[in-house]
Parts: sequence; structure tokens; C-alpha cells
Amino acid sequence: MTQNPKVIIIGAGFGGLFAARELANQSVDVLLVDRNNYHTFTPLLYQVATAALDPSQIAYPVRSIFRSIPNIHFLLGIVTKIDAELQQVTIMCGEQPRTEVYDYLIVAAGSVPTYFGSDDFRQYAFELRTLHDSIRLRNHVLNLFEEAVWTEDDAHRNALLTVVVVGGGPTGLETAGAVFELYNHVLNQDYPQADLKAKVILVEMQNHLLGPYPSRLRQAAQDQLESLGVEVQLGHRVTEVYADRVVLDDGSLIPSHTLVWSAGVKAAPVAELLATELRSNGTIPIDSTTRVQGMKRVFAIGDNAYLPQHENVGYPMLIPVAQQQGQVAARNVLADLNGTSPKTFRYVDKGIMATIGRSRAVAWIFNRFALTGRLAWLAWLGLHLVMLLGFRNRLSVFINWIWNYITYDRSVRIIWRQSAQKSSLSDSTLDEQHPVLLEK
Amino acid sequence: MTQNPKVIIIGAGFGGLFAARELANQSVDVLLVDRNNYHTFTPLLYQVATAALDPSQIAYPVRSIFRSIPNIHFLLGIVTKIDAELQQVTIMCGEQPRTEVYDYLIVAAGSVPTYFGSDDFRQYAFELRTLHDSIRLRNHVLNLFEEAVWTEDDAHRNALLTVVVVGGGPTGLETAGAVFELYNHVLNQDYPQADLKAKVILVEMQNHLLGPYPSRLRQAAQDQLESLGVEVQLGHRVTEVYADRVVLDDGSLIPSHTLVWSAGVKAAPVAELLATELRSNGTIPIDSTTRVQGMKRVFAIGDNAYLPQHENVGYPMLIPVAQQQGQVAARNVLADLNGTSPKTFRYVDKGIMATIGRSRAVAWIFNRFALTGRLAWLAWLGLHLVMLLGFRNRLSVFINWIWNYITYDRSVRIIWRQSAQKSSLSDSTLDEQHPVLLEK
Repeated sequence: MTQNPKVIIIGAGFGGLFAARELANQSVDVLLVDRNNYHTFTPLLYQVATAALDPSQIAYPVRSIFRSIPNIHFLLGIVTKIDAELQQVTIMCGEQPRTEVYDYLIVAAGSVPTYFGSDDFRQYAFELRTLHDSIRLRNHVLNLFEEAVWTEDDAHRNALLTVVVVGGGPTGLETAGAVFELYNHVLNQDYPQADLKAKVILVEMQNHLLGPYPSRLRQAAQDQLESLGVEVQLGHRVTEVYADRVVLDDGSLIPSHTLVWSAGVKAAPVAELLATELRSNGTIPIDSTTRVQGMKRVFAIGDNAYLPQHENVGYPMLIPVAQQQGQVAARNVLADLNGTSPKTFRYVDKGIMATIGRSRAVAWIFNRFALTGRLAWLAWLGLHLVMLLGFRNRLSVFINWIWNYITYDRSVRIIWRQSAQKSSLSDSTLDEQHPVLLEK
Repeated sequence: MTQNPKVIIIGAGFGGLFAARELANQSVDVLLVDRNNYHTFTPLLYQVATAALDPSQIAYPVRSIFRSIPNIHFLLGIVTKIDAELQQVTIMCGEQPRTEVYDYLIVAAGSVPTYFGSDDFRQYAFELRTLHDSIRLRNHVLNLFEEAVWTEDDAHRNALLTVVVVGGGPTGLETAGAVFELYNHVLNQDYPQADLKAKVILVEMQNHLLGPYPSRLRQAAQDQLESLGVEVQLGHRVTEVYADRVVLDDGSLIPSHTLVWSAGVKAAPVAELLATELRSNGTIPIDSTTRVQGMKRVFAIGDNAYLPQHENVGYPMLIPVAQQQGQVAARNVLADLNGTSPKTFRYVDKGIMATIGRSRAVAWIFNRFALTGRLAWLAWLGLHLVMLLGFRNRLSVFINWIWNYITYDRSVRIIWRQSAQKSSLSDSTLDEQHPVLLEK
């Protein structure tokens, strides 16, 4: 019996999953490595953060996904070393390092937040990149609301009930809208004694929201956010962040205990383990077959990789790009094994959409058709339901959504007690050497 | 406008909730205090621990329960001091102490595990008294399974896959059965490569399981456990517990990384804040009106309280006792205010039941009718569905149960990354002064 060639995929995000799926039942042995035992449906993290969904509704165990596929194996661990000469990867599994030899490596570890040099913001900022980020934000927001009920000082109470969201991309809009609805349509029902009015401020550096959208949709998004009640501050940067206040570049001070950072991401640092020169945002330059430049047996995809779409501008860090590049990388592994010519990545762009709240959204379908309001929201809802992996998860998410829509209720607003150490909750990538990988 | 008399209830468990419900819309102001913002449906904690249910399916926000009741208020915090002279309670809310004056106090803080003097066991033991206990056990068990897949040493792998459950009461039986099913009917499906056989050992000091049941049902429970595959060790005590092994009183050594302790409970230590003499198990002696002996305005109920049922034997620490005593305490607060004579507690005992796994259970209805097997299991299922608070939670639990039953699947087996500090996860009572009450 000859051994099949071995393909290691780092990361069980959208790119890694699609690459693995493409290799299912082929004559290769696939080892999928992730620091979590589940795939996270990241577009709905903000719904977990705002108590609309349960964490497990957007997390799906990797082993379940590939249960019936005998050539796909899963390893729970953190990649700490890549040796492209020896073709091997070192993975920390709990406290045990493991070395795995590969014939082909696909790097698909995604991206992490970046503060563009202001890393001190991170001490007080909340992020929304992992399931634990979202639970942490939910705990925080619910706790502040509890504290606000019993606070007699007006200024302090207002600060407790003010959330600053930084970043005018889809995540920023979705979070701002959902937090506002959570506060002013859901939680305030629970506190009939107190007249609690929460404030949500969205801060964006540029003079418009949603950079990649046509200006009509940018404006529609802003109008819908403002009609909901969110305050939009365009053309401003955050310059200082403290536990109880945020300072903008015009010197204005916002008393707030909650800053949600969704202003930017960079490639996950696993890329640094490769002996290749990275772009300034940490991405790995790849050629049009998704192969890492100068490395015959290493591929990189999605947010981790850089391939110019236009002159000196890479493809956007979007799920469909990662998925399609994952498929290309996997097919090119097979092409290499079969001695056929490699496939070139061609992005099939079906459009982009962002939701703002109940019946509020914008969509830019096939980059030609603009939708706004309820129609865009329904399109968003349908797309995300279809995308969610697994029948059962989809059904329960759907039940929750319908329930929330009818009742304005949020069923899952329980406060978890977790570690007070931020670091153990916010590490979102496969590659940081982190002491608390697994709780024992 | 005159101020209504104020009733403080410590604990939003079954007793506290029933007391509060009884005071709804009466001429009193109720302040319900709990360290969590939710009520926990404790009988199903083991299902969260074994990945059958989501945490939020058995947790219900206290504020939602009493949303439409204007005279019931909720305070999230930990009681640190009770002054029965001044009639006031000190509560730590986050880092802020708060003093609340009461006219009547109802102590309903429940119970916590006891190791009967062997407190060193606690370092390695897992408990099942709080939502966080159950998530901690789930993480642990799922992580060990992942580790076992990649372990080449047979002895080490077997130790990773051996769970010792201590205590032959309902919680012990339920946990042993559910862990066995999780391992040998669910998780092993996810790991087709490895032939993983897990072992579950139930250790009970007495010579039979389920002390309060008639011997026929005790035997039926044991037979059903053994038919499932659980090893039952009767007449044995645990004498030593380490990270990787458990030692019994006959010197026999069980290599195991997981000990679940459900051998006994004592009253929650909030009782110690009362200037009254406690029983050896920490319970507060009360009279038949649930009033604390010698204190006119303080009541204690449920697991926290001691009232002799038979000579020198208190009522069992069961949910119906807590609920019914909660009602009596509340009615006697009202009786005192109205100048009417107090009501005496009379326990309405509808029976007891314990489930062992899929289609396996025993029930002792009205202490007269014995049920075993599928019929007892259906009775158990129905009763727990009816008991679960709130329509929506009940529905989603029901969907999960049906799904699990049909597919042998567990939908929620994701590993949370939490604090590595056990102490921040396992404190289960309202009254320990704990630094990590709320995560900020």
C-alpha cells in the first residue's frame, strides 16, 4: 500500500474549509489544523455579541463537517513553526508540540484586527473576530446596562450607556445598528423602572461609510443608520482610548466605556512563519495559481494572501475570495500531482451587502443592482441562511430570527462569567503562541 | 404616597423565584439579588456538560421573567454582609458595595458541593452546580477526546478516555449515562480513523444507588446503567484525586483525567452571614413557617434551610421543597404585614425521578408508583419540558432533544476557550466574596 501525498491546511475558516472540501475523497491525505474545534460563521458574530444568537448557532464542529470523509483529518492546535525546506509544520497541541510533514501546504489562517500602530487602544477596545470576542462584548454590554440601572449619577449613567463603534465597513454598521436595537428596543423593556436611553456613535475616518459601495448606497446606509438613531461621525479618527472615554482627532471627548474596533484587519501572523517577504499588511504575495512566490509546495489564500486585482491593489478581504481561492489552491495541488497545468484564480463577484438593523440594509448585487431597505434586508437574511452550514444550525438560527423579529426579544442575553484576562479571549488566529489554548 | 415595605430575596434559584412570584403585584417592593443575571435550570446542567444543550437553553434572564411585574426589581451582585439588627444587606455590584435596607429578608441561596473534609479533591474535580461548571466540564471532556485521537500510547489514551463519576444520586447517574453516550455514541462517530472506546465508572459509597428510592428501583437504575455500558462500583469511597488518577479506599487506582463530583452538597455559605447557629451541613434552622429561629423578619428556604421532616432529618434538598417553601415564606411575609396568622409548610411530594440515558430512567411517582425504562424516561422528559421556564426555551430544548434522539448527534459540541483559573468558573453561590464576579 503506498501512502497518499499529504496536504496540510492551516485554518478552518471559509478558505480552509473550501480547500478541504475540494480535496475530499481524492488521493491525498488532508490534515486540517485549527486552534478551535469549530468553524466560525464570522458574519454573524455581531449577532452573538448583541444577544440575538447563541454562540453554537454560528459555530460548527470541524469534525462533524467532515465526518463522512475518510481522507480528511482534523488536528486541534496552534501552528508555531513552518519549515519549507524540510516540508514540515510544528503544531502545539495543548502543551505537546507535534511535527507533521507535508507534501503540500495551504496557509488559510485569515486575518486579525489592526490598530494601525495605536496598539495601546487594544487594552480597552472590543473586537469582533472570534466567538470569544463576541461573548466578551455581550458580557460587557449587559453588565454595563445592569450597572446603569442602579447608577444615580446622570453623567456616569450616560457614559455606561454610550457605545462607540469605530469603522464604517459592514461590521461597523451591523454592530452599531444591532447594539442600538439591543439597547433601545430590547433591554429597555426589561428595565421598566428606569428610563434608560442608550447612545451609539459610529466613527469613520473617511467622509463616507462603506468604501467599496457606490455613493448612492453609501448615503442610503448612512440615512438608515441615522433613522434608526445611531449618531454617525464621518471624517474623524480616534486618537485616545481609555476605560471610560474616547478622544477624537478634533479633541472632542466621548464619555464611554465601550469602544468596538472594526476599523481594519491585517493578515494573520502565521504568515510570518514563512520565509518569504510579506506586504505591509502582513499578507503573503501569491501568484495567480495561489502559490506562494518562490515556494513550489506552499499555497496561501484569502485574507492571508496578496494577489493584485488591480494595479498594486489586492483582492478584497471577503469570504467569497477566500472560498474561491481555497478551491483554486486545492485544485492546483491535484493538478501538480497529476502533472496537469494549474488553474488560474478568476474572482466571481456576486456583489456585497451590509445590514443595519431590522428591515434596514444595503446590497450591491453583481456590482450592478442597488437594493436598500427591507428588500436588501430580506436578501441579506436569505443569503446568510443559505450560507450557514448544516441544516440544523440553519433551522435554529431561523427560528431565533423570526422570534426576534416578531417579539423584539433577545432570548440569549445571559452574562457569561469568563476570565478577566482579555488576552485569553481575544486571540483570533492560529499562529500566536498562546499559553491558554485549551482549558484543562 | 407611602412607601411599600421592602422584601429582599437572596438568590434567583427555584426557591427565590417562587417566593418572588408569590409577591408579584402585592403591596411590597421586592428586590431579588443574584450573582448571575439569569436563573439556571439546574436539572439539565449535565446536558450542557455533555454537549446536548446550549447554555442559554437552560438559563433564563431574571429580568425577562419579571418584566411585566412593576414591584419586582433585580440587582446583579454578591451579598457580602447581612445585618439583622439594622435590617440591611450589603451587596457587591461589580466593585461597588451597595447597602439595601429591608423590612423582610428571604434567604434562598441554595447549596454548593461539599467534599466532606477532603477539600483537596476540589483542585482536580469537576462539579455540576452552575452553568460555568457545565461548560468547563464540556471543554475538558471534548479536549481530552481530541488529545486521545492523536495519542499513540495506549495506556495514556485509555486514561484520557476514562471518566470517574462520584455519587450515586440522580446527578451522578445522569452524568455517567450522558457522558457514556456522548463518548460512545456521538463523539466516536466524529473520529472514524481511531477506534476510541471510552470508559465511565460510577463510584458510590453506599451499597446501592439512589438512596431515597425503593430497592426495586435502585436495582433497576443499576441494571440500566450497566446495560448502557457504565461500570458501577458500589461500597467504595474515593480517597485520593490527582490530575491523572483516582484512588479508591481499597487501594485500587483508576487512571483518569476526569473526576465529576456529585457526592454531596451543603448549604450555600451566605448562611454564615446570619448571626445564628447553623447545622453541620451549613443549613439555617427554621420553624415550620420558614422563619429563621429567633429572627422575626428573616426567612430561609430550600437547600439553605433546615426544617425537620422526620426526627432530626430535614426535608430533602429538592427543587419542589425549595419552591413550596418559597411560596410559604412569601405568604408569611404578607401575613405578617396583614396581621393574619402564618401558614405552616406542608410538603406536597409528587415523587422523584432520575434519568440514565436514552430511554433509560426510573421514577417513583407519589412515592407509590414505580416506573422504569422508556416509560419513566418519557415521564422525565415531559416533566422537564413542562418545568422549563418560558415558551421559547422549552421549544428549542424540545427541538434539540428530538434531534439528538433521532440522530444520536450533539449539535453544540464546541469547545469554549475560557479562563484556566478554575476558581473563576466554579463558584456557584451568591455569597462567596469573589473577585471575578463580572467581567469588565
